[in-house]
Amino acid sequence: MKFLIMEGLSILERTPMIVSLLVKNLPDSWIFQNEGGETWNVFDVIGHYIHGEKTDWIPRMQIILGEGDKHFVPFDRFAQFKDSKGKTLDELLEEFARLRKENVIKLRNAQLDEAALSKKATHPELGEVSLSELLASWVVHDLTHICQIARVMAKQYEATVGPWKAYMGILNR
Amino acid sequence: MKFLIMEGLSILERTPMIVSLLVKNLPDSWIFQNEGGETWNVFDVIGHYIHGEKTDWIPRMQIILGEGDKHFVPFDRFAQFKDSKGKTLDELLEEFARLRKENVIKLRNAQLDEAALSKKATHPELGEVSLSELLASWVVHDLTHICQIARVMAKQYEATVGPWKAYMGILNR
Repeated sequence: MKFLIMEGLSILERTPMIVSLLVKNLPDSWIFQNEGGETWNVFDVIGHYIHGEKTDWIPRMQIILGEGDKHFVPFDRFAQFKDSKGKTLDELLEEFARLRKENVIKLRNAQLDEAALSKKATHPELGEVSLSELLASWVVHDLTHICQIARVMAKQYEATVGPWKAYMGILNR
Repeated sequence: MKFLIMEGLSILERTPMIVSLLVKNLPDSWIFQNEGGETWNVFDVIGHYIHGEKTDWIPRMQIILGEGDKHFVPFDRFAQFKDSKGKTLDELLEEFARLRKENVIKLRNAQLDEAALSKKATHPELGEVSLSELLASWVVHDLTHICQIARVMAKQYEATVGPWKAYMGILNR
């Protein structure tokens, strides 16, 4: 399926609301427990979304469309552990919603045509990538972490569902 | 984690809105393509939620709490292929929201205490199950299919993300 800017926008602009509906006003046990080991809890995932808004998607679009050096700065997958410290979940949700709103406006204002979408830059590990691949990845990244949040939450009831665990694929991943 | 009725209710009552935000007003390509083979598309999943509202969760709660035979009727995992025929996605989303609202009211009105939550009935395959296990499974089932919808949608961009596919766990499941 081709990347279409209007489709991408209509998914990207809904994500903060979807995430907020999933996690807001729930007891801490749903938010601060992870899937075990080094996995992330819901709070970590929201912080990761925020770091993406600040350093990944739109800044990389600007590198691709700009006149300067066409190399991306590596993305820090662990920035949220420092950046989210001392903040509440509601503060993170508000920050994510605000940054996403600003970034969707920047994306809309860029008025990307086919020529712009096919422009390229160099990813530190993946090599040459195009703007349409970057923006499609932004959409998929949103969906990935919605799925992750639902899974992390579901796992809190792993024992609570009793014998139904056998039917719940999400609990066995 | 223990099943707490107020937590369960607060998740169950949000699901139709979350699902609607995820899938409403998108082009058909996002809604009617599956993950390949016999897998379900987004439209199928919404129909499956509806069939659960009609025949699974609250009807089974009523069997557990009732005075009659304590055996569940088997759940039809494929009913939506017949029942959703000829309907639009918006019709399914409205039907799901309406049925869920009614069922949340029934759950609230049941005023379940610990004694009620520990009552049991017999599942056709899983054997003896309690009301708290049934209700926790309802919550996990909601989350499972939110994750599935996000994954099915993400996979539509599998080729579109280019080399980023390597980073997207959701595309490699």
